[in-house]
Amino acid sequence: MNTGAHADSKAIQAIGLADARRVMERCEALARHSEEQGRLTRRFATPALAAAMGEVAAWMRAAGMSVRRDNAGNLIGRYEAAGTGSAIDGKPSRPRTLLPSTPGPTSTPTNIDGKPSRPRTLLLGSHLDSVRDAGRYDGPLGVLVALAVIERLRVQARRLPLAIEVVAFADEEGLRYGTSYLGSKAVAGAFDPTLLQRVDDDGVRMDEAIRAAGGDPAAIPADARSRDDLVGYCEAHIEQGPVLEAEGLPVGVVSAIAGQSRFTVTFEGTAGHAGTVPMALRHDALCAAAEFMLAVEALARATPGLVATVGQLAVEPGASNVIPGRAVLSLDVRHQDDATRLRSCDQLRATVGRIAVDRGVADRWDTVQEDNATPCDPALGDALGQAIASLGLPVRRLPSGAGHDGVVLAALCPVAMLFVRCCGGVSHHPAESVTVEDVAVAVQALARFVENLAAAEPAPAVAR
Amino acid sequence: MNTGAHADSKAIQAIGLADARRVMERCEALARHSEEQGRLTRRFATPALAAAMGEVAAWMRAAGMSVRRDNAGNLIGRYEAAGTGSAIDGKPSRPRTLLPSTPGPTSTPTNIDGKPSRPRTLLLGSHLDSVRDAGRYDGPLGVLVALAVIERLRVQARRLPLAIEVVAFADEEGLRYGTSYLGSKAVAGAFDPTLLQRVDDDGVRMDEAIRAAGGDPAAIPADARSRDDLVGYCEAHIEQGPVLEAEGLPVGVVSAIAGQSRFTVTFEGTAGHAGTVPMALRHDALCAAAEFMLAVEALARATPGLVATVGQLAVEPGASNVIPGRAVLSLDVRHQDDATRLRSCDQLRATVGRIAVDRGVADRWDTVQEDNATPCDPALGDALGQAIASLGLPVRRLPSGAGHDGVVLAALCPVAMLFVRCCGGVSHHPAESVTVEDVAVAVQALARFVENLAAAEPAPAVAR
Repeated sequence: MNTGAHADSKAIQAIGLADARRVMERCEALARHSEEQGRLTRRFATPALAAAMGEVAAWMRAAGMSVRRDNAGNLIGRYEAAGTGSAIDGKPSRPRTLLPSTPGPTSTPTNIDGKPSRPRTLLLGSHLDSVRDAGRYDGPLGVLVALAVIERLRVQARRLPLAIEVVAFADEEGLRYGTSYLGSKAVAGAFDPTLLQRVDDDGVRMDEAIRAAGGDPAAIPADARSRDDLVGYCEAHIEQGPVLEAEGLPVGVVSAIAGQSRFTVTFEGTAGHAGTVPMALRHDALCAAAEFMLAVEALARATPGLVATVGQLAVEPGASNVIPGRAVLSLDVRHQDDATRLRSCDQLRATVGRIAVDRGVADRWDTVQEDNATPCDPALGDALGQAIASLGLPVRRLPSGAGHDGVVLAALCPVAMLFVRCCGGVSHHPAESVTVEDVAVAVQALARFVENLAAAEPAPAVAR
Repeated sequence: MNTGAHADSKAIQAIGLADARRVMERCEALARHSEEQGRLTRRFATPALAAAMGEVAAWMRAAGMSVRRDNAGNLIGRYEAAGTGSAIDGKPSRPRTLLPSTPGPTSTPTNIDGKPSRPRTLLLGSHLDSVRDAGRYDGPLGVLVALAVIERLRVQARRLPLAIEVVAFADEEGLRYGTSYLGSKAVAGAFDPTLLQRVDDDGVRMDEAIRAAGGDPAAIPADARSRDDLVGYCEAHIEQGPVLEAEGLPVGVVSAIAGQSRFTVTFEGTAGHAGTVPMALRHDALCAAAEFMLAVEALARATPGLVATVGQLAVEPGASNVIPGRAVLSLDVRHQDDATRLRSCDQLRATVGRIAVDRGVADRWDTVQEDNATPCDPALGDALGQAIASLGLPVRRLPSGAGHDGVVLAALCPVAMLFVRCCGGVSHHPAESVTVEDVAVAVQALARFVENLAAAEPAPAVAR
């Protein structure tokens, strides 16, 4: 399967590694902004996140972008389109005070014939918040690859017929408030104001945290972007899985972000003395759970594209000489096709019931979460695929099993994602790793993608 | 199978319930002596254990017994044999100070023809220490049933040709120092003095604890009983299993105390994102553990008399969206036949290796404990069986899957055990429960057993 090695080296020779090296150095630099000594943890609306954003903002300005932060704390650098009066003098634009409440672009005025009266905007980016004890690439890589694309344009003194905004989202992981995508929800106009009353582990309410970070919670709805203004959103991200590595490919095009169902499954049997209760009289809750776990695995193996995982299992009372009376397990089921996922969940629920009856134990099935799949935009995906193919690389389309801000932004505009091979499929762990060669391919692919889109973009009506 | 109901009621009608009611009341009374508010926990060498023993000691004295405590903290009440000058006046003997270090009987002097020069001693009893959050019958029931037998003799002003000692052992469960049978090991001369250096969870060394409880650690070896002096040891105990209940029998005769093997089994796979690693690329440690658990269950079901239990299972990292990278489980295997147990363990070890190879995970098999089976004495078992049969009840022989002080005492003297039906097989739990009717049968059976042994006991040489 390792067909990509030759193509890789060709592509890398073509583009050089300087941009990618800078991306890697910046990922290192951002990893130093953490809430915790000795490991990387950067939650929503914390000083550590503000510091990371401050560093990215400086790089954005140096790349000729205007920089602002919205009320949810997203950092947005804008590289203006051609014909909007932006000077291209090769010098960094003058540093500006980072005003959190600077209003962003609102609805684009249109001419009488319905064409946009000013250039549309392409959103690139990813997030800068992290999980606890995170790696350094999940999130920052996508922001910095996007920034590298802008820096190439800047070096070439090029403006495109579309504006590009690089967005560094403030909360994708949801670590602080147990609810994901706070940043992209604000951009998409999908921010739920009732969430503002949530408190973190230290008792800090979300609205207080947002204010402490310089935002105005009440103004978040006004930060929502207008869909007419946008070409789409494209995010580069580490794959977080082993598929590209297994197939020897540096990058891939995301076909869809998988839908996800999460359940808690409980088997309630009868605890008893491990030495005295004969096998025939047992109602062992853990054996019921074991039978279920193998059924989960068997179904997922037999269903193409399905992944199903039991990641947590609690046994009570949990003594070596006591037959388990209770076993509680988590079940996570994902597929890019919602019907397949829902049908699989139904089958597993029936399996739980069948096992419970067979073994004389009680069962319980609680739904924790149900998210439908998010298909990526076919046209943007094709544009990404053409960019990859133009580098002499095979175009691999694969679903994302993990969730991303694109899930939320898909309600606002077309969405695409570029996956970058990561070592061993490891993510959410300090061992997260990507190669500078693969990052170089990602920068080049995203740059060509942007050029392809720009070439297809009609000149704005005002410029005719 | 419920053939015992009619026999039960016949037996109960024959014997009345007064003795059994007192046993039940005393189990209640002893349950009030606990180290913890609101639940019963009575560890070795604690004031709570001393208080329980003090109450039992008073009942012993009231029953005409001489009472002492040995240096390990075992409480021993002695009901003298006939012809040893004991007054039978129906009044309780005068309370004596409870001297912990009063020396017990040492080697019995014999006449020139080898016959004992004084009556031999039958040991009855059980233990008064408990597990954490214990029930009220595991241990105390055996002490109090034995005491009830003595009280019957006392009421009838009878002395037998053998002395009876009721022993309340100080540590069967091993909760405080993580090592079981401290009390019976002292009696059997098997106490390991290196254990004296162990510390409990509060950092208290065992030798200090023994001194604080009034014993002299250095004198424990001298408390060992002489085997020539002893007829044997018989303990009444709740079954801790559901066999007697399932068969409708109030009591049963223990055939052997099962041998036990304990292992820790570890599967080491590869952690990964639950959404992004396809099933075919996974090395899920928990799925390996699940396959093993079902193999354990299948082998035990297919092997008569074998019980095998996975009671503990730890999953790492233990997040709902992370494929388990590591699963560590406890394995407990018991059988009354050592060869069967060891062969089964070998099979399970091979199964672990086979699963690990099949799944591309690492495996580890650590032996925690290996105890051979302890067969009960056939002659004492027959005497117990005859006693039960004389009450019109079927004689059910069954192994004990749980360990008991008899495991240690079997090296000193013949051992027998009488199991009493318990509700649902529950033990080591506040819900432990026995019926007064079953306790009445147990008292009656043990009393007849004692009479049968007494009838067979030759008069001591000195009395000829």
